[in-house]
Amino acid sequence: MHPFDTAIALTTVDAHCSRGATTSAYANMVGPFGGTTAAVLLNAALRHAERRGEPVALTVNYASALADGAFEIDARAVRTNRSTQHWILQLRQGDDVAATATAVFATRRETWSAPEATAPADPPAPDTLARQDPTRRPPWVQRYDMRFIDGGMPTRFDGAEHPHSHSCLWVRDDPPRPIDFASLAALCDTFFPRVYLRRRKIVPIGTVSLTTYFHADTAMLAAHGAQPVLASAHGLNFRNGYCDQRGELWSARRELLASTQQVMYYRE
Amino acid sequence: MHPFDTAIALTTVDAHCSRGATTSAYANMVGPFGGTTAAVLLNAALRHAERRGEPVALTVNYASALADGAFEIDARAVRTNRSTQHWILQLRQGDDVAATATAVFATRRETWSAPEATAPADPPAPDTLARQDPTRRPPWVQRYDMRFIDGGMPTRFDGAEHPHSHSCLWVRDDPPRPIDFASLAALCDTFFPRVYLRRRKIVPIGTVSLTTYFHADTAMLAAHGAQPVLASAHGLNFRNGYCDQRGELWSARRELLASTQQVMYYRE
Repeated sequence: MHPFDTAIALTTVDAHCSRGATTSAYANMVGPFGGTTAAVLLNAALRHAERRGEPVALTVNYASALADGAFEIDARAVRTNRSTQHWILQLRQGDDVAATATAVFATRRETWSAPEATAPADPPAPDTLARQDPTRRPPWVQRYDMRFIDGGMPTRFDGAEHPHSHSCLWVRDDPPRPIDFASLAALCDTFFPRVYLRRRKIVPIGTVSLTTYFHADTAMLAAHGAQPVLASAHGLNFRNGYCDQRGELWSARRELLASTQQVMYYRE
Repeated sequence: MHPFDTAIALTTVDAHCSRGATTSAYANMVGPFGGTTAAVLLNAALRHAERRGEPVALTVNYASALADGAFEIDARAVRTNRSTQHWILQLRQGDDVAATATAVFATRRETWSAPEATAPADPPAPDTLARQDPTRRPPWVQRYDMRFIDGGMPTRFDGAEHPHSHSCLWVRDDPPRPIDFASLAALCDTFFPRVYLRRRKIVPIGTVSLTTYFHADTAMLAAHGAQPVLASAHGLNFRNGYCDQRGELWSARRELLASTQQVMYYRE
Protein backbone atom coordinates (compact mmCIF):
# COMPACT_ATOMS: atom_id res chain seq x y z
CA MET A 1 0.00 0.00 0.00
CA HIS A 2 1.35 3.43 -0.94
CA PRO A 3 2.02 5.57 2.16
CA PHE A 4 -0.36 8.21 0.81
CA ASP A 5 -3.20 5.68 0.74
CA THR A 6 -2.35 4.78 4.32
CA ALA A 7 -2.42 8.47 5.28
CA ILE A 8 -5.91 9.04 3.83
CA ALA A 9 -7.41 5.67 4.82
CA LEU A 10 -10.74 5.85 6.65
CA THR A 11 -12.91 3.26 8.31
CA THR A 12 -16.65 3.72 8.60
CA VAL A 13 -18.07 4.45 12.06
CA ASP A 14 -21.62 5.25 10.94
CA ALA A 15 -23.46 6.88 8.04
CA HIS A 16 -21.73 10.24 8.56
CA CYS A 17 -18.68 9.48 10.67
CA SER A 18 -15.43 7.85 9.59
CA ARG A 19 -12.18 7.35 11.46
CA GLY A 20 -8.58 7.82 10.38
CA ALA A 21 -5.16 8.44 11.88
CA THR A 22 -2.11 10.54 11.17
CA THR A 23 0.93 8.64 9.85
CA SER A 24 4.61 9.25 10.51
CA ALA A 25 5.34 9.11 6.76
CA TYR A 26 3.58 12.49 6.29
CA ALA A 27 4.54 14.11 9.60
CA ASN A 28 5.25 17.83 9.52
CA MET A 29 7.16 19.81 12.16
CA VAL A 30 4.03 19.84 14.33
CA GLY A 31 1.29 17.36 13.44
CA PRO A 32 0.72 16.03 9.92
CA PHE A 33 1.25 17.73 6.55
CA GLY A 34 -1.77 19.91 5.76
CA GLY A 35 -2.01 18.38 2.29
CA THR A 36 -2.89 14.98 3.71
CA THR A 37 -5.44 16.62 6.02
CA ALA A 38 -7.07 18.20 2.95
CA ALA A 39 -6.90 14.88 1.11
CA VAL A 40 -8.44 12.83 3.90
CA LEU A 41 -11.28 15.35 4.28
CA LEU A 42 -11.95 15.11 0.55
CA ASN A 43 -11.70 11.33 0.81
CA ALA A 44 -14.42 11.29 3.47
CA ALA A 45 -16.78 12.72 0.83
CA LEU A 46 -15.34 10.70 -2.07
CA ARG A 47 -15.97 7.38 -0.29
CA HIS A 48 -19.36 8.37 1.14
CA ALA A 49 -22.33 6.30 -0.04
CA GLU A 50 -24.29 9.47 -0.90
CA ARG A 51 -21.56 11.01 -3.04
CA ARG A 52 -22.52 12.01 -6.58
CA GLY A 53 -20.14 13.36 -9.20
CA GLU A 54 -16.52 14.51 -8.99
CA PRO A 55 -14.90 17.29 -6.95
CA VAL A 56 -15.07 20.82 -8.33
CA ALA A 57 -14.16 22.89 -5.25
CA LEU A 58 -12.63 22.13 -1.87
CA THR A 59 -11.99 24.57 0.98
CA VAL A 60 -10.16 23.36 4.08
CA ASN A 61 -9.83 25.51 7.18
CA TYR A 62 -7.09 24.51 9.59
CA ALA A 63 -8.44 25.29 13.04
CA SER A 64 -5.46 23.89 14.94
CA ALA A 65 -2.46 21.66 14.44
CA LEU A 66 -3.64 18.05 14.54
CA ALA A 67 -2.27 15.92 17.34
CA ASP A 68 -0.52 12.77 16.13
CA GLY A 69 -2.96 9.89 16.31
CA ALA A 70 -6.61 9.13 15.58
CA PHE A 71 -9.26 11.52 14.30
CA GLU A 72 -12.88 11.34 13.20
CA ILE A 73 -14.45 13.05 10.21
CA ASP A 74 -18.11 14.01 10.11
CA ALA A 75 -19.21 14.33 6.45
CA ARG A 76 -22.64 15.63 5.49
CA ALA A 77 -24.10 16.13 2.02
CA VAL A 78 -26.25 19.12 2.95
CA ARG A 79 -27.68 19.59 -0.53
CA THR A 80 -27.84 17.35 -3.57
CA ASN A 81 -29.06 18.92 -6.80
CA ARG A 82 -29.46 17.38 -10.23
CA SER A 83 -25.81 17.91 -11.14
CA THR A 84 -24.13 19.34 -8.02
CA GLN A 85 -23.70 18.29 -4.40
CA HIS A 86 -22.60 20.38 -1.41
CA TRP A 87 -20.69 18.96 1.55
CA ILE A 88 -19.78 20.18 5.02
CA LEU A 89 -17.00 18.26 6.74
CA GLN A 90 -15.48 18.48 10.20
CA LEU A 91 -12.37 16.73 11.46
CA ARG A 92 -12.41 16.19 15.22
CA GLN A 93 -9.99 14.89 17.80
CA GLY A 94 -11.92 14.20 20.99
CA ASP A 95 -14.23 17.18 21.51
CA ASP A 96 -12.07 19.58 19.50
CA VAL A 97 -12.68 20.58 15.89
CA ALA A 98 -9.23 20.54 14.30
CA ALA A 99 -10.32 21.29 10.72
CA THR A 100 -13.45 22.18 8.78
CA ALA A 101 -14.09 21.87 5.08
CA THR A 102 -16.67 22.43 2.40
CA ALA A 103 -16.67 20.60 -0.90
CA VAL A 104 -18.69 20.89 -4.07
CA PHE A 105 -19.04 17.87 -6.33
CA ALA A 106 -20.53 17.96 -9.81
CA THR A 107 -21.40 15.79 -12.75
CA ARG A 108 -19.65 17.38 -15.70
CA ARG A 109 -21.02 17.52 -19.21
CA GLU A 110 -19.14 18.29 -22.38
CA THR A 111 -19.50 22.00 -23.27
CA TRP A 112 -17.64 24.78 -25.03
CA SER A 113 -14.23 24.79 -23.39
CA ALA A 114 -11.22 27.09 -23.61
CA PRO A 115 -8.09 27.33 -21.53
CA GLU A 116 -6.96 30.88 -20.77
CA ALA A 117 -3.98 30.73 -18.42
CA THR A 118 -0.98 28.99 -19.93
CA ALA A 119 1.56 26.73 -18.29
CA PRO A 120 5.11 28.02 -17.66
CA ALA A 121 6.77 28.04 -21.07
CA ASP A 122 9.45 25.54 -22.04
CA PRO A 123 10.30 24.09 -18.65
CA PRO A 124 13.38 21.83 -18.61
CA ALA A 125 12.42 18.14 -18.47
CA PRO A 126 12.19 16.79 -14.90
CA ASP A 127 15.02 14.29 -15.44
CA THR A 128 17.39 17.12 -16.40
CA LEU A 129 16.88 18.80 -13.01
CA ALA A 130 18.25 17.87 -9.61
CA ARG A 131 15.82 16.76 -6.96
CA GLN A 132 15.46 19.18 -4.04
CA ASP A 133 17.34 17.59 -1.17
CA PRO A 134 14.72 16.53 1.38
CA THR A 135 17.17 15.56 4.12
CA ARG A 136 16.86 17.50 7.38
CA ARG A 137 13.29 18.37 6.33
CA PRO A 138 10.06 17.02 7.83
CA PRO A 139 9.08 13.50 6.70
CA TRP A 140 6.28 14.69 4.38
CA VAL A 141 8.79 16.57 2.21
CA GLN A 142 10.49 13.24 1.54
CA ARG A 143 7.19 11.90 0.16
CA TYR A 144 7.44 14.34 -2.77
CA ASP A 145 10.00 14.41 -5.55
CA MET A 146 10.39 18.15 -6.18
CA ARG A 147 12.55 19.49 -9.00
CA PHE A 148 12.66 23.25 -9.02
CA ILE A 149 12.91 25.26 -12.20
CA ASP A 150 12.75 28.51 -10.26
CA GLY A 151 12.20 29.70 -6.69
CA GLY A 152 13.45 26.66 -4.79
CA MET A 153 13.65 26.44 -1.02
CA PRO A 154 16.37 28.93 0.00
CA THR A 155 19.68 27.30 0.84
CA ARG A 156 20.62 30.17 3.13
CA PHE A 157 18.32 31.79 5.64
CA ASP A 158 20.36 34.94 6.12
CA GLY A 159 17.45 37.38 6.23
CA ALA A 160 18.46 38.95 2.89
CA GLU A 161 14.97 39.67 1.56
CA HIS A 162 14.04 38.40 -1.88
CA PRO A 163 11.95 40.65 -4.17
CA HIS A 164 9.34 38.04 -5.12
CA SER A 165 7.91 34.68 -4.11
CA HIS A 166 7.46 32.94 -7.46
CA SER A 167 8.23 29.23 -7.66
CA CYS A 168 8.00 26.77 -10.51
CA LEU A 169 8.74 23.08 -10.14
CA TRP A 170 7.99 19.54 -11.17
CA VAL A 171 6.47 17.57 -8.32
CA ARG A 172 5.20 14.02 -7.92
CA ASP A 173 4.54 11.54 -5.15
CA ASP A 174 7.55 9.51 -3.99
CA PRO A 175 7.28 6.62 -4.57
CA PRO A 176 5.37 7.43 -7.78
CA ARG A 177 1.60 6.98 -7.56
CA PRO A 178 -1.05 7.54 -10.25
CA ILE A 179 -2.66 10.90 -9.52
CA ASP A 180 -6.25 11.05 -8.28
CA PHE A 181 -8.42 13.76 -6.73
CA ALA A 182 -7.11 13.11 -3.21
CA SER A 183 -3.44 13.25 -4.18
CA LEU A 184 -4.09 16.32 -6.33
CA ALA A 185 -5.67 18.01 -3.30
CA ALA A 186 -2.54 17.20 -1.31
CA LEU A 187 -0.19 18.34 -4.10
CA CYS A 188 -1.88 21.76 -3.93
CA ASP A 189 -0.40 22.19 -0.44
CA THR A 190 3.18 21.17 -1.28
CA PHE A 191 4.40 24.71 -2.04
CA PHE A 192 6.67 25.72 0.81
CA PRO A 193 5.70 28.95 2.61
CA ARG A 194 6.05 31.99 0.35
CA VAL A 195 7.18 33.99 3.38
CA TYR A 196 10.34 31.85 3.59
CA LEU A 197 11.16 32.78 0.00
CA ARG A 198 10.59 36.49 0.56
CA ARG A 199 12.23 36.85 3.96
CA ARG A 200 14.92 34.16 3.85
CA LYS A 201 14.05 33.71 7.48
CA ILE A 202 12.32 30.83 9.25
CA VAL A 203 9.38 32.12 11.28
CA PRO A 204 6.42 30.19 12.70
CA ILE A 205 3.82 29.71 9.94
CA GLY A 206 0.67 27.75 9.30
CA THR A 207 -1.99 27.48 6.63
CA VAL A 208 -5.28 28.93 7.85
CA SER A 209 -7.48 28.22 4.83
CA LEU A 210 -6.85 26.43 1.53
CA THR A 211 -9.16 26.42 -1.50
CA THR A 212 -8.66 24.27 -4.57
CA TYR A 213 -10.66 24.22 -7.78
CA PHE A 214 -10.44 20.97 -9.72
CA HIS A 215 -10.36 21.48 -13.47
CA ALA A 216 -9.43 17.84 -14.09
CA ASP A 217 -11.92 15.02 -14.35
CA THR A 218 -11.21 11.33 -13.84
CA ALA A 219 -10.28 10.79 -17.49
CA MET A 220 -7.73 13.63 -17.44
CA LEU A 221 -6.18 12.31 -14.24
CA ALA A 222 -6.01 8.79 -15.68
CA ALA A 223 -4.25 10.13 -18.79
CA HIS A 224 -1.74 11.94 -16.58
CA GLY A 225 -1.00 8.88 -14.47
CA ALA A 226 2.08 9.04 -12.26
CA GLN A 227 3.97 11.65 -14.27
CA PRO A 228 5.30 14.74 -12.50
CA VAL A 229 2.98 17.74 -12.25
CA LEU A 230 4.22 21.15 -13.37
CA ALA A 231 3.42 23.50 -10.49
CA SER A 232 3.73 27.25 -10.03
CA ALA A 233 2.91 29.54 -7.12
CA HIS A 234 3.30 33.11 -5.93
CA GLY A 235 2.19 35.31 -3.06
CA LEU A 236 0.20 38.51 -3.48
CA ASN A 237 0.50 40.23 -0.14
CA PHE A 238 2.14 39.80 3.25
CA ARG A 239 0.60 41.96 5.93
CA ASN A 240 0.42 41.92 9.71
CA GLY A 241 0.66 38.19 10.22
CA TYR A 242 -1.26 36.91 7.17
CA CYS A 243 -0.22 36.27 3.59
CA ASP A 244 -1.85 34.61 0.62
CA GLN A 245 -0.63 32.35 -2.16
CA ARG A 246 -2.00 31.37 -5.54
CA GLY A 247 -0.90 28.29 -7.41
CA GLU A 248 -1.56 26.30 -10.56
CA LEU A 249 -0.93 22.62 -11.25
CA TRP A 250 -0.50 21.46 -14.83
CA SER A 251 -0.50 18.01 -16.38
CA ALA A 252 2.32 16.67 -18.52
CA ARG A 253 0.14 17.73 -21.49
CA ARG A 254 -0.06 21.28 -20.07
CA GLU A 255 -3.72 21.04 -19.12
CA LEU A 256 -4.70 22.88 -15.94
CA LEU A 257 -5.42 20.18 -13.38
CA ALA A 258 -6.19 22.52 -10.50
CA SER A 259 -5.97 26.14 -9.40
CA THR A 260 -5.37 26.66 -5.71
CA GLN A 261 -5.06 29.46 -3.18
CA GLN A 262 -4.40 29.69 0.50
CA VAL A 263 -3.97 32.15 3.33
CA MET A 264 -1.28 31.52 5.93
CA TYR A 265 -0.41 33.14 9.20
CA TYR A 266 3.17 34.00 10.08
CA ARG A 267 4.76 35.46 13.18
CA GLU A 268 7.04 38.46 13.77
CA MET B 1 -30.77 53.35 5.69
CA HIS B 2 -28.53 52.39 2.76
CA PRO B 3 -30.10 49.61 0.63
CA PHE B 4 -27.03 47.45 1.26
CA ASP B 5 -27.60 47.63 5.01
CA THR B 6 -31.21 46.62 4.43
CA ALA B 7 -30.05 43.67 2.29
CA ILE B 8 -27.70 42.31 4.97
CA ALA B 9 -29.89 43.13 8.00
CA LEU B 10 -30.47 40.25 10.40
CA THR B 11 -32.66 39.84 13.45
CA THR B 12 -31.73 37.44 16.22
CA VAL B 13 -33.82 34.27 16.57
CA ASP B 14 -31.62 32.55 19.15
CA ALA B 15 -27.95 32.17 20.06
CA HIS B 16 -27.03 30.66 16.67
CA CYS B 17 -29.92 31.52 14.38
CA SER B 18 -30.70 34.85 12.77
CA ARG B 19 -33.27 35.83 10.19
CA GLY B 20 -33.04 38.02 7.11
CA ALA B 21 -34.77 38.54 3.78
CA THR B 22 -33.86 39.20 0.18
CA THR B 23 -34.51 42.74 -1.08
CA SER B 24 -35.64 43.89 -4.49
CA ALA B 25 -32.83 46.47 -4.60
CA TYR B 26 -30.25 43.66 -5.01
CA ALA B 27 -32.35 41.25 -7.09
CA ASN B 28 -30.52 39.28 -9.76
CA MET B 29 -32.12 37.54 -12.75
CA VAL B 30 -33.09 34.65 -10.44
CA GLY B 31 -32.99 35.31 -6.70
CA PRO B 32 -30.68 37.87 -5.09
CA PHE B 33 -27.16 38.96 -6.10
CA GLY B 34 -24.62 36.43 -4.76
CA GLY B 35 -22.52 39.24 -3.31
CA THR B 36 -25.25 40.17 -0.83
CA THR B 37 -25.65 36.48 0.06
CA ALA B 38 -21.92 36.35 0.84
CA ALA B 39 -22.19 39.60 2.80
CA VAL B 40 -25.18 38.53 4.89
CA LEU B 41 -23.47 35.22 5.75
CA LEU B 42 -20.37 37.15 6.85
CA ASN B 43 -22.62 39.54 8.75
CA ALA B 44 -24.14 36.64 10.71
CA ALA B 45 -20.66 35.98 12.12
CA LEU B 46 -19.68 39.67 12.42
CA ARG B 47 -22.72 40.48 14.59
CA HIS B 48 -22.54 37.25 16.65
CA ALA B 49 -21.92 37.69 20.38
CA GLU B 50 -19.08 35.14 20.30
CA ARG B 51 -17.21 36.77 17.42
CA ARG B 52 -13.57 37.63 18.06
CA GLY B 53 -11.31 39.52 15.65
CA GLU B 54 -11.76 40.54 12.03
CA PRO B 55 -12.38 38.45 8.89
CA VAL B 56 -9.36 36.89 7.19
CA ALA B 57 -11.02 34.29 4.93
CA LEU B 58 -14.56 33.66 3.71
CA THR B 59 -15.77 30.83 1.49
CA VAL B 60 -19.39 30.80 0.33
CA ASN B 61 -20.88 27.85 -1.53
CA TYR B 62 -24.05 28.56 -3.47
CA ALA B 63 -26.13 25.41 -3.20
CA SER B 64 -29.14 26.79 -5.06
CA ALA B 65 -30.65 30.05 -6.20
CA LEU B 66 -32.31 31.69 -3.20
CA ALA B 67 -36.04 32.17 -3.42
CA ASP B 68 -37.12 35.77 -2.94
CA GLY B 69 -38.19 36.24 0.67
CA ALA B 70 -37.09 35.26 4.15
CA PHE B 71 -34.14 33.06 5.12
CA GLU B 72 -32.43 31.92 8.30
CA ILE B 73 -28.72 31.69 8.96
CA ASP B 74 -27.23 29.23 11.42
CA ALA B 75 -23.82 30.53 12.56
CA ARG B 76 -21.49 28.45 14.73
CA ALA B 77 -18.05 29.33 16.03
CA VAL B 78 -16.71 25.76 15.99
CA ARG B 79 -13.26 26.68 17.29
CA THR B 80 -11.92 29.76 19.04
CA ASN B 81 -8.15 29.94 19.53
CA ARG B 82 -6.07 32.67 21.11
CA SER B 83 -5.95 34.75 17.93
CA THR B 84 -8.17 32.93 15.39
CA GLN B 85 -11.76 31.80 15.23
CA HIS B 86 -13.40 29.33 12.80
CA TRP B 87 -17.02 29.57 11.71
CA ILE B 88 -19.43 27.29 9.87
CA LEU B 89 -22.54 28.99 8.50
CA GLN B 90 -25.62 27.69 6.73
CA LEU B 91 -28.33 29.71 5.03
CA ARG B 92 -31.66 27.93 4.94
CA GLN B 93 -35.06 28.55 3.41
CA GLY B 94 -37.53 26.18 5.01
CA ASP B 95 -35.83 22.79 5.16
CA ASP B 96 -33.48 23.51 2.27
CA VAL B 97 -29.86 24.59 2.61
CA ALA B 98 -29.43 27.32 -0.01
CA ALA B 99 -25.85 28.30 0.86
CA THR B 100 -23.04 27.20 3.15
CA ALA B 101 -20.00 29.16 4.27
CA THR B 102 -16.90 28.95 6.36
CA ALA B 103 -15.16 32.00 7.77
CA VAL B 104 -11.92 32.56 9.62
CA PHE B 105 -11.56 35.56 11.87
CA ALA B 106 -8.30 36.70 13.44
CA THR B 107 -6.84 39.30 15.69
CA ARG B 108 -4.03 40.86 13.71
CA ARG B 109 -0.75 42.03 15.15
CA GLU B 110 1.78 44.32 13.54
CA THR B 111 4.53 42.27 11.84
CA TRP B 112 6.95 42.46 8.95
CA SER B 113 4.79 43.30 5.96
CA ALA B 114 5.43 43.53 2.24
CA PRO B 115 3.09 43.83 -0.70
CA GLU B 116 4.04 41.72 -3.70
CA ALA B 117 1.30 42.04 -6.32
CA THR B 118 0.89 45.58 -7.60
CA ALA B 119 -2.25 47.44 -8.60
CA PRO B 120 -2.94 48.11 -12.29
CA ALA B 121 -0.57 50.90 -13.27
CA ASP B 122 -1.75 54.43 -13.91
CA PRO B 123 -5.49 53.88 -14.19
CA PRO B 124 -7.46 56.90 -15.43
CA ALA B 125 -9.26 58.66 -12.58
CA PRO B 126 -12.83 57.41 -12.05
CA ASP B 127 -14.39 60.76 -12.89
CA THR B 128 -12.71 60.75 -16.31
CA LEU B 129 -14.47 57.48 -17.23
CA ALA B 130 -18.08 56.86 -18.21
CA ARG B 131 -20.23 54.81 -15.91
CA GLN B 132 -21.26 51.41 -17.31
CA ASP B 133 -24.90 51.79 -18.29
CA PRO B 134 -26.89 49.66 -15.83
CA THR B 135 -30.23 50.02 -17.62
CA ARG B 136 -31.80 46.76 -18.84
CA ARG B 137 -29.60 44.94 -16.29
CA PRO B 138 -30.74 43.28 -13.04
CA PRO B 139 -31.41 45.66 -10.13
CA TRP B 140 -28.21 44.74 -8.25
CA VAL B 141 -26.08 46.08 -11.11
CA GLN B 142 -27.68 49.46 -10.54
CA ARG B 143 -26.44 49.38 -6.93
CA TYR B 144 -22.85 49.61 -8.16
CA ASP B 145 -21.18 52.48 -9.97
CA MET B 146 -18.80 50.65 -12.35
CA ARG B 147 -16.34 52.51 -14.54
CA PHE B 148 -14.37 50.19 -16.77
CA ILE B 149 -10.79 50.83 -17.72
CA ASP B 150 -10.64 47.58 -19.66
CA GLY B 151 -12.79 44.50 -20.29
CA GLY B 152 -16.25 46.01 -19.79
CA MET B 153 -19.50 44.14 -20.28
CA PRO B 154 -19.70 43.39 -24.02
CA THR B 155 -22.06 45.68 -25.90
CA ARG B 156 -22.68 43.06 -28.57
CA PHE B 157 -23.29 39.40 -27.88
CA ASP B 158 -22.56 38.18 -31.38
CA GLY B 159 -20.66 35.03 -30.41
CA ALA B 160 -17.36 36.43 -31.74
CA GLU B 161 -15.03 34.92 -29.16
CA HIS B 162 -12.65 37.18 -27.26
CA PRO B 163 -9.10 35.95 -26.57
CA HIS B 164 -9.02 36.79 -22.86
CA SER B 165 -11.24 37.61 -19.91
CA HIS B 166 -9.32 40.40 -18.17
CA SER B 167 -11.26 43.29 -16.67
CA CYS B 168 -10.16 46.35 -14.77
CA LEU B 169 -12.58 48.88 -13.32
CA TRP B 170 -13.41 51.34 -10.59
CA VAL B 171 -16.37 50.18 -8.57
CA ARG B 172 -18.24 51.56 -5.57
CA ASP B 173 -21.64 51.24 -3.95
CA ASP B 174 -24.38 53.44 -5.39
CA PRO B 175 -25.36 55.47 -3.47
CA PRO B 176 -21.84 55.79 -1.99
CA ARG B 177 -21.34 53.98 1.31
CA PRO B 178 -18.18 53.77 3.47
CA ILE B 179 -16.63 50.37 2.81
CA ASP B 180 -16.67 47.69 5.51
CA PHE B 181 -16.00 43.96 5.57
CA ALA B 182 -19.53 43.07 4.47
CA SER B 183 -19.57 45.44 1.51
CA LEU B 184 -16.04 44.36 0.54
CA ALA B 185 -17.25 40.73 0.53
CA ALA B 186 -20.08 41.76 -1.81
CA LEU B 187 -17.79 43.83 -4.05
CA CYS B 188 -15.73 40.67 -4.61
CA ASP B 189 -18.70 39.19 -6.47
CA THR B 190 -19.43 42.19 -8.72
CA PHE B 191 -17.28 40.99 -11.63
CA PHE B 192 -19.64 39.92 -14.39
CA PRO B 193 -19.18 36.34 -15.63
CA ARG B 194 -15.85 35.84 -17.38
CA VAL B 195 -17.56 33.44 -19.76
CA TYR B 196 -19.63 36.34 -21.16
CA LEU B 197 -16.41 38.19 -21.94
CA ARG B 198 -14.80 35.21 -23.65
CA ARG B 199 -17.80 33.91 -25.57
CA ARG B 200 -19.78 37.11 -26.26
CA LYS B 201 -22.74 34.90 -25.70
CA ILE B 202 -25.26 34.84 -22.85
CA VAL B 203 -25.52 31.33 -21.43
CA PRO B 204 -26.96 30.22 -18.08
CA ILE B 205 -24.31 30.73 -15.37
CA GLY B 206 -24.03 30.70 -11.61
CA THR B 207 -21.33 30.99 -8.98
CA VAL B 208 -20.76 27.66 -7.26
CA SER B 209 -18.13 28.67 -4.71
CA LEU B 210 -16.52 32.01 -3.82
CA THR B 211 -13.49 32.51 -1.59
CA THR B 212 -12.22 35.89 -0.42
CA TYR B 213 -9.11 36.69 1.60
CA PHE B 214 -9.29 39.98 3.48
CA HIS B 215 -5.98 41.82 3.55
CA ALA B 216 -7.60 44.99 4.93
CA ASP B 217 -8.26 45.64 8.57
CA THR B 218 -10.78 48.08 10.03
CA ALA B 219 -8.31 50.96 9.98
CA MET B 220 -7.49 50.46 6.30
CA LEU B 221 -11.17 50.30 5.42
CA ALA B 222 -11.87 53.45 7.43
CA ALA B 223 -9.07 55.27 5.60
CA HIS B 224 -10.55 54.19 2.25
CA GLY B 225 -14.04 55.33 3.14
CA ALA B 226 -16.53 55.58 0.28
CA GLN B 227 -13.98 56.03 -2.51
CA PRO B 228 -14.15 53.74 -5.54
CA VAL B 229 -12.22 50.48 -5.36
CA LEU B 230 -9.83 49.58 -8.18
CA ALA B 231 -10.76 46.04 -9.17
CA SER B 232 -9.26 43.55 -11.61
CA ALA B 233 -10.23 40.00 -12.56
CA HIS B 234 -9.45 37.27 -15.03
CA GLY B 235 -10.35 33.64 -15.69
CA LEU B 236 -7.86 30.79 -15.84
CA ASN B 237 -9.77 27.97 -17.44
CA PHE B 238 -13.17 27.18 -18.93
CA ARG B 239 -13.86 23.49 -19.22
CA ASN B 240 -16.93 21.28 -19.47
CA GLY B 241 -19.33 23.50 -17.61
CA TYR B 242 -17.04 25.03 -14.98
CA CYS B 243 -14.70 28.01 -15.06
CA ASP B 244 -12.74 29.90 -12.44
CA GLN B 245 -11.96 33.55 -11.82
CA ARG B 246 -9.36 35.37 -9.77
CA GLY B 247 -9.72 38.97 -8.70
CA GLU B 248 -8.02 41.69 -6.69
CA LEU B 249 -9.53 44.77 -5.03
CA TRP B 250 -7.31 47.75 -4.34
CA SER B 251 -7.84 50.83 -2.20
CA ALA B 252 -7.49 54.37 -3.50
CA ARG B 253 -3.98 54.24 -1.97
CA ARG B 254 -3.23 51.06 -4.00
CA GLU B 255 -3.24 48.77 -0.98
CA LEU B 256 -4.62 45.28 -1.58
CA LEU B 257 -7.95 45.18 0.25
CA ALA B 258 -8.89 41.64 -0.77
CA SER B 259 -7.96 38.84 -3.14
CA THR B 260 -10.84 36.73 -4.33
CA GLN B 261 -11.53 33.68 -6.47
CA GLN B 262 -14.58 31.80 -7.56
CA VAL B 263 -15.72 28.85 -9.62
CA MET B 264 -18.84 29.18 -11.76
CA TYR B 265 -20.88 26.75 -13.78
CA TYR B 266 -22.02 27.57 -17.27
CA ARG B 267 -24.20 25.71 -19.75
CA GLU B 268 -23.68 24.65 -23.37
